[in-house]
Amino acid sequence: MKVVKFGGSSLASATQWRKVANIILSDEQRKLVVVSAPGKRDAQDTKTTDLLIQLASTVTPSSFDEEALLKVVDRYRDIAEELDLGDNIIETIKDSLLEIIQTYRTQYERLLDALKASGEDNNAKLIASYFQSLGVVAHYVSPKDAGMIVTDEPGNARILPEAYERIADLRKREGILIIPGFFGYSNNEHIVTFPRGGSDITGSIIAAGVEADEYENFTDVDSIYSVNPNIVDNPCEIKELTYREMRELAYSGFSVFHDEALQPVVQKKVPVRVKNTNHPEAPGTKIIAEREVNGVPVVGIASDKGFCSINITKYLMNREVGFGRHLLEILEDEQISFEHTPSGIDNISVIVRSHHLEGGKEDRVINRILSELHVDDVSIERDLAIVMVVGEGMEKTVGIAAKATNAFYDAGVNIKMINQGSSEVSMMFGVEAYKVDLAVKSLYEAYFMK
Amino acid sequence: MKVVKFGGSSLASATQWRKVANIILSDEQRKLVVVSAPGKRDAQDTKTTDLLIQLASTVTPSSFDEEALLKVVDRYRDIAEELDLGDNIIETIKDSLLEIIQTYRTQYERLLDALKASGEDNNAKLIASYFQSLGVVAHYVSPKDAGMIVTDEPGNARILPEAYERIADLRKREGILIIPGFFGYSNNEHIVTFPRGGSDITGSIIAAGVEADEYENFTDVDSIYSVNPNIVDNPCEIKELTYREMRELAYSGFSVFHDEALQPVVQKKVPVRVKNTNHPEAPGTKIIAEREVNGVPVVGIASDKGFCSINITKYLMNREVGFGRHLLEILEDEQISFEHTPSGIDNISVIVRSHHLEGGKEDRVINRILSELHVDDVSIERDLAIVMVVGEGMEKTVGIAAKATNAFYDAGVNIKMINQGSSEVSMMFGVEAYKVDLAVKSLYEAYFMK
Repeated sequence: MKVVKFGGSSLASATQWRKVANIILSDEQRKLVVVSAPGKRDAQDTKTTDLLIQLASTVTPSSFDEEALLKVVDRYRDIAEELDLGDNIIETIKDSLLEIIQTYRTQYERLLDALKASGEDNNAKLIASYFQSLGVVAHYVSPKDAGMIVTDEPGNARILPEAYERIADLRKREGILIIPGFFGYSNNEHIVTFPRGGSDITGSIIAAGVEADEYENFTDVDSIYSVNPNIVDNPCEIKELTYREMRELAYSGFSVFHDEALQPVVQKKVPVRVKNTNHPEAPGTKIIAEREVNGVPVVGIASDKGFCSINITKYLMNREVGFGRHLLEILEDEQISFEHTPSGIDNISVIVRSHHLEGGKEDRVINRILSELHVDDVSIERDLAIVMVVGEGMEKTVGIAAKATNAFYDAGVNIKMINQGSSEVSMMFGVEAYKVDLAVKSLYEAYFMK
Repeated sequence: MKVVKFGGSSLASATQWRKVANIILSDEQRKLVVVSAPGKRDAQDTKTTDLLIQLASTVTPSSFDEEALLKVVDRYRDIAEELDLGDNIIETIKDSLLEIIQTYRTQYERLLDALKASGEDNNAKLIASYFQSLGVVAHYVSPKDAGMIVTDEPGNARILPEAYERIADLRKREGILIIPGFFGYSNNEHIVTFPRGGSDITGSIIAAGVEADEYENFTDVDSIYSVNPNIVDNPCEIKELTYREMRELAYSGFSVFHDEALQPVVQKKVPVRVKNTNHPEAPGTKIIAEREVNGVPVVGIASDKGFCSINITKYLMNREVGFGRHLLEILEDEQISFEHTPSGIDNISVIVRSHHLEGGKEDRVINRILSELHVDDVSIERDLAIVMVVGEGMEKTVGIAAKATNAFYDAGVNIKMINQGSSEVSMMFGVEAYKVDLAVKSLYEAYFMK
């Protein structure tokens, strides 16, 4: 049994829906289908979710903007008309939106959550209706019915452990089940949405709950690429990737997946496959727990900007038990999560995302480091980028580091930081942000073109 | 004005003393002389300090081993006879030892400290007497008289801040002052020895106190070498070195200096020069606050064995504010100081010296990491060595990392860890201990032979 998730662009128009139907019907394993709200049909279009947020913003305790409501309904109507699904379903969708507005008009946070969730919810209903119109046994299953029980924090739902047992029961149902992504129900019967990567999370939870043979994630690219296509033209496709490699890549610039979304399938070791709705015959990228290295020690090169480094020096620092702990405590007090802490004997650098130091935090942190740790010097280095070379086979391959550092040298890029741990699938380099694309191109050539 | 310190091997025999006298008298700047106890005359010989520790072990409240006492006295007698210094001074030395035994026979810790200190103290008296016999104006100055006021913890003295003002007064004294190294006096009038690098510490404190133009440290090598001569034959001499470079080298296998000893001169920026008593015309190695890089970005390559790595993985680790702090807190509770903490996205390694995990600490640490941090996996990797490439110019030189990693590759050595911070004078590599000498040789060739 496969759990199949379709993203917004895969469901933006009737043309796309026909492709989706073909995909589902071409493999009888594809029984559980998780859907997003209709996405953009072209670059100028607005996503349904954004139309819903717009609608929410017009709602007052006594009124709302009818036109904003109609814009949402018309998105579904356009699809329904082209697929000859009739008017009833559109009226049902409109009524459900009116009911949400009626119910939550005085509670803005709940209203927003429920309206956002309706994007997926109504789409699932409409898709079930479309499948039925094709003579397929298909059912809309609400997240409540599916067992998606979540914490009751609007916009920040987390799945509750007891949900999995109920989700497992989906295996017993007949026909194709269409489940809206992006939200669940709290024990108080409220609709609550997931924070980020919403439909991916639902798909991942469902796949883990039913212990699917595969979780197929359909999007609009043929595969995950070994490097950002905006930096290198026509980069290699990645055939196989481990969860750990995916995490390292997602962290630094690879946006195919929101990495937190993968946690449920990682725990159950359900294989994930990224595929293209517009080109379903392409094999896509398979993400699994372990892979054979087979001469491919490096799978990808990622990069991300917007980092800075807090550099601290103090004579005899490494003799001071508790120095590192105290330093991290200061950061924790300010809720600053750090990325890496490369250190020498008498110095340590803490790499953080620059936005973490905004809002007065920078001054407070610097002052506390000076006054509590009695350091010789503390300074902030800005405009850094991080480059990650990622691959399961790196650890055991002599010469991987040499290849990487030579690539930086060839590109004339000075390496400011290097961080490679002993159990790692990645090597991290810190460089000046304005040179990062040069470095990535040179690394790509070194690992993939030679 | 220069402060000059002579180590034990420089003062082991009358032959050596003549060299020392020539060195002192050849430069009128050499006014303050800090001396160790007589060291070994050859490989089979016993250091005076060890004879004294042996003597201390024979002392009971009512007796001591006369022969052990005579062994100590005879060390000085041998020198005194060859230099025609007469018997009086030897009787004075013998009496002073008897007095220490009499005073402290019921307090073993104090006895040990006072006897150990007497090695340097009596040597200073004898050297002053030798200089006087040469017609030189020279005075023995006791550490109490010099102002060496220290904390009152036997075997673990620390200089008190008020000492420096009194030490500064040494500038006003006439003639050459001979000061015993290795100990000071507490405010309770007790003799207390320094923990490690004893005479180096005294010399460094005196040099800082008088704000000397140079602190000359005479030992038995021509200079500090760019690599361990036991690994590479006839390595390059280092002409100039910064304090920071010295610290990094001393940390990982360079034993010329005990690095903590340098702290006082580092604070006052007094230049240090390492010279050879047996070859004083060699320029030696100068250690200073800053140096011109001038095409010498790397000054030395150091290595040390006996490390292990605690490797921890946990999915989504880097999203967890407080994880690093909590981990370091566990180590701190066990009084384990760590060396480096290279990290990936979902894993972190803590490099520690292996002996820190002995005595049940390993199990306790592992258990706490498992139970308190809920990690996916924790393991210990043993028998690691650390290699440091050290140099002030590294940070700004493109290609330094490439050179290093190529050298590892050429030697067929897999790099398990790399750590290079942004404000650094060093690059750290972790390798399997049995391959470390291969790596060091290859690095030396890359940086110094090409």
